[in-house]
Amino acid sequence: MVLDILDLELARLLAKYVREWNGRGWSPATSTNYSFRNDAAHIAVSKSGVDKSQFSENDFLLLDLASEKLRPEYLEEQPDIRTSAETELHTALYKVNPNIGAVVHTHSVYDTILSDAFFRSGRSELVLCDYELLKAIDGYQTHEASLSIPIFGNTQNITNLAAEFRRAYEQQPDMKGYLIAGHGFYTWGKNIAEAKRHLEAFQFLLECQYKAILIRKLI
Amino acid sequence: MVLDILDLELARLLAKYVREWNGRGWSPATSTNYSFRNDAAHIAVSKSGVDKSQFSENDFLLLDLASEKLRPEYLEEQPDIRTSAETELHTALYKVNPNIGAVVHTHSVYDTILSDAFFRSGRSELVLCDYELLKAIDGYQTHEASLSIPIFGNTQNITNLAAEFRRAYEQQPDMKGYLIAGHGFYTWGKNIAEAKRHLEAFQFLLECQYKAILIRKLI
Amino acid sequence: MVLDILDLELARLLAKYVREWNGRGWSPATSTNYSFRNDAAHIAVSKSGVDKSQFSENDFLLLDLASEKLRPEYLEEQPDIRTSAETELHTALYKVNPNIGAVVHTHSVYDTILSDAFFRSGRSELVLCDYELLKAIDGYQTHEASLSIPIFGNTQNITNLAAEFRRAYEQQPDMKGYLIAGHGFYTWGKNIAEAKRHLEAFQFLLECQYKAILIRKLI
Amino acid sequence: MVLDILDLELARLLAKYVREWNGRGWSPATSTNYSFRNDAAHIAVSKSGVDKSQFSENDFLLLDLASEKLRPEYLEEQPDIRTSAETELHTALYKVNPNIGAVVHTHSVYDTILSDAFFRSGRSELVLCDYELLKAIDGYQTHEASLSIPIFGNTQNITNLAAEFRRAYEQQPDMKGYLIAGHGFYTWGKNIAEAKRHLEAFQFLLECQYKAILIRKLI
Repeated sequence: MVLDILDLELARLLAKYVREWNGRGWSPATSTNYSFRNDAAHIAVSKSGVDKSQFSENDFLLLDLASEKLRPEYLEEQPDIRTSAETELHTALYKVNPNIGAVVHTHSVYDTILSDAFFRSGRSELVLCDYELLKAIDGYQTHEASLSIPIFGNTQNITNLAAEFRRAYEQQPDMKGYLIAGHGFYTWGKNIAEAKRHLEAFQFLLECQYKAILIRKLI
Repeated sequence: MVLDILDLELARLLAKYVREWNGRGWSPATSTNYSFRNDAAHIAVSKSGVDKSQFSENDFLLLDLASEKLRPEYLEEQPDIRTSAETELHTALYKVNPNIGAVVHTHSVYDTILSDAFFRSGRSELVLCDYELLKAIDGYQTHEASLSIPIFGNTQNITNLAAEFRRAYEQQPDMKGYLIAGHGFYTWGKNIAEAKRHLEAFQFLLECQYKAILIRKLI
Repeated sequence: MVLDILDLELARLLAKYVREWNGRGWSPATSTNYSFRNDAAHIAVSKSGVDKSQFSENDFLLLDLASEKLRPEYLEEQPDIRTSAETELHTALYKVNPNIGAVVHTHSVYDTILSDAFFRSGRSELVLCDYELLKAIDGYQTHEASLSIPIFGNTQNITNLAAEFRRAYEQQPDMKGYLIAGHGFYTWGKNIAEAKRHLEAFQFLLECQYKAILIRKLI
Repeated sequence: MVLDILDLELARLLAKYVREWNGRGWSPATSTNYSFRNDAAHIAVSKSGVDKSQFSENDFLLLDLASEKLRPEYLEEQPDIRTSAETELHTALYKVNPNIGAVVHTHSVYDTILSDAFFRSGRSELVLCDYELLKAIDGYQTHEASLSIPIFGNTQNITNLAAEFRRAYEQQPDMKGYLIAGHGFYTWGKNIAEAKRHLEAFQFLLECQYKAILIRKLI
């Protein structure tokens, strides 16, 4: 069921990118989730359990942002329908920052293992420095900058994780993405294009970070 | 020759995935094999020696599950036709667990070298822990879990390998995949979609495991 | 706006390659820039901020080479239009060498991290030796050669960077490419085909260089 | 110019594979060369300098195998036309073994750096052992085997390299491929399909070999 109020143009655009990112290996095995701000009152969130190589605009469900509940029309048609289990992490972002227009969550090899390895070694952030590509991140005009990506421990209690994110965001309101240890990466943007730009930049930089660690003592 | 009783929809679906997995490098040089449960009495197994970039629904042959013999129609037409040399590993799975609907066997770089390196170092399993993506595996509700993948030594005696699998499965009935040292990986699911989800999750996690080993002492 | 004097055939050819290189991960997140010599008086330079997966011939803007200014028609239509912030690095090349027909600038994982790691360790060049593929570079007839790629420190002052390039080029007039630390890679050719050949050869050799460093002490 | 006697079906098949292998990064920057036995008297060899992403059946030239000279029709039309500089390595293979139907030569990252690193450390062969995928190589029925790939030093004197190959082949008539240090890899088969199977198997195993070396001391 596709509701009349779904912004089909945005849904089609993000769905196309979701399939592309799947082709890059960032959403294995039906994992990961995506959303965009549909209008003042609603966000569209990806359905749970869809193979992302076949993700389409019909796989977005509208949620009332205030109540964080699915629009009732879906449940009338299919009582057991649900959005991603991590929907609360999306709504937390739209609520703390009215300028956020899209949120993307991936599982790439590099976001998974770097978050895991750093967190196990006791670190709560991964810092990116001196890369020209930092300029692809909103607010960065130069490579001479340090960008901190918080790393949260993984948990199945999404409510707790959302609370931990909100506390961190209060301390670091210029946060542009965060990692969950052994789990994956969240980033966002003022619209879908910016979220895409942020995602591509961060995934590139995480791969650089990993591969730089490997040669650090060999140069 | 395509028999009337072949479930063409399933055959087309799995053939499409076989070509996709080939594109990801998981079936080099005509290697690997695939099957699905066609109906109560038959399984469909991939023909031997086909280049998987060109694999089609016509490359599945029907086998009588009870006798493990090819349907006689094929042999009448082409006496030397045969299914994969590893067919017995497929039938062993369908026989030990009536809920298995599809079996996939790949040769990826990571399943090949991790199984080889672990087996040479005397280990008989590879254990995956704490990855969020474990939740893509049937029966896993949390990342706080250990999933053991048995590693069997490689042999050209498939009957012995099948027996070794059956002994291991009796001890570990929640097994979801196994490695053969220097050879490759087997996984399965209640249907083709679940086997695909398992395969993608395991291949992703094996790549993570390999790349995590490389940085373990460098973080 | 596409001006009549734009060489559409060249623009389409380079745009096609730009999209292909994007598919190889060499231009993440709207980064990188490209140009070709359109005619004796003009060069065509890529517009700033375009997602390179969707780059087209319409994304080239014509610049008067002598003045390094955009053709006035663009500004009349869209006063804030601009070419890449690094345009000066392109014009510097076309001015020092009248035989240069195309300039390409990429951000690959390997050009980013090798330039960064080498520069941090105090080196101002990366030297490629003994690879057969050196013969893909104009002027190299044998693998028994050393090809020096200068590494410049990164800066947001493109005028300074252009001056540093010109000084280096005076010393090393057979230069075929240069790295900017933590930033990316520039190469060029007498036409688009040669710039493509140089880019592919250098990116291949940089990946070889990185991967050779990893095994150097393990063989 | 396409001569009437060119076997178009074979030319199209190999050209298609050449483009696919280019997509896998095995022929950067117009490098590498390919051939097949067209008929008892002629072999078809790839033209020099073609971008392999655009390689077509028209890019094969017919050579008289006995004299190793191009068919005169080509030279009448285009006096400076020539086949790959390494043509002599192809003809050497067709002459030492009448059962060879196709020869392929690639430059992959792994064949380049492994051949270079092994050769520099004084070794003249790379040995593959215990991989199941050895069975993809003609004559190997089991993984319990050692397959030796000779490594020759690189030289621009192709006549000398061809002589070195012939001496080695005499000692090792079951040779299925060889490496040239820092240069690339040659393999062949009784027909195009077998050469493809050999190439895919060897490239896969060389990648395994490289990645196994990296973790050898870390498991």
